[in-house]
Amino acid sequence: MSSKGKIILTPIGFVRTDAVGDEVKDKTKLSQIIIHDELAEALDGIAGFSHLFVLFWLHEISEEQRKTLKVHPRGRRDLPLLGVLATRTMLRPNPIGLTLVELVKVEGNVLTVRGLDAFDGAPVLDVKPFDSWDMAKDARVPEWWSKLESEKAKSR
Amino acid sequence: MSSKGKIILTPIGFVRTDAVGDEVKDKTKLSQIIIHDELAEALDGIAGFSHLFVLFWLHEISEEQRKTLKVHPRGRRDLPLLGVLATRTMLRPNPIGLTLVELVKVEGNVLTVRGLDAFDGAPVLDVKPFDSWDMAKDARVPEWWSKLESEKAKSR
Repeated sequence: MSSKGKIILTPIGFVRTDAVGDEVKDKTKLSQIIIHDELAEALDGIAGFSHLFVLFWLHEISEEQRKTLKVHPRGRRDLPLLGVLATRTMLRPNPIGLTLVELVKVEGNVLTVRGLDAFDGAPVLDVKPFDSWDMAKDARVPEWWSKLESEKAKSR
Repeated sequence: MSSKGKIILTPIGFVRTDAVGDEVKDKTKLSQIIIHDELAEALDGIAGFSHLFVLFWLHEISEEQRKTLKVHPRGRRDLPLLGVLATRTMLRPNPIGLTLVELVKVEGNVLTVRGLDAFDGAPVLDVKPFDSWDMAKDARVPEWWSKLESEKAKSR
């Protein structure tokens, strides 16, 4: 396959949540990840981890939206116009969501997690145990990012 | 699209590295990510971040290998047999690599990064700026995981 060739994924499961709209951003909310029955065995041992990365498909993003190259972060025109890959916008060439969640409970093929900002029905592509090598303690972010973060903190 | 429907991705670029075999695991090594020209604009502003998540396609994994449900971590039979989703094995239903890297340099459509454990030619699916909300400071991992980590530390 060439590096331009298409890649085909099959979801391993889907998200169940009663959160709607902006409620999905509430990091205290619980969601469920329902893994397809035939893959349930692939979860064996996952309960030993407290945190997981969830990779999911942003199924609400259209083919047209995937062509977006630049955005104002969160649609804010007071912030610079930036390349989509320099932000965490959902409007990306491959709209894959990546969220660190707390693993609360495992029951058969159902994972209950806290902090997953995915909509109900979102196809799940992968879950990966989190460990300390996934962290950078001294990460630097640009000014516009820090500004958004501090506004978010104040609004809590 | 149903949660079982197939999802089609198009790589945004590819990895260039002279590391071969186990050399790709050397976290001090530099690699390059070449973003396709038509997407270069989507990188505007990325230099403001010191760290990125890179999502790439593990193109060496076959369709047959994607069906693996259980593995001994790193092939070690002294460790428990675990579900693939409870490990970071490359043998996963959707073999997407996820690695946190240091962004060293940005020149046009070329990102120079440190710590990317991807092989030469690996298709890149997404890059995402890293921030502190991608960390869990108090993460718990199972005993087999800690054992592997402490062995790795000793061998350095």
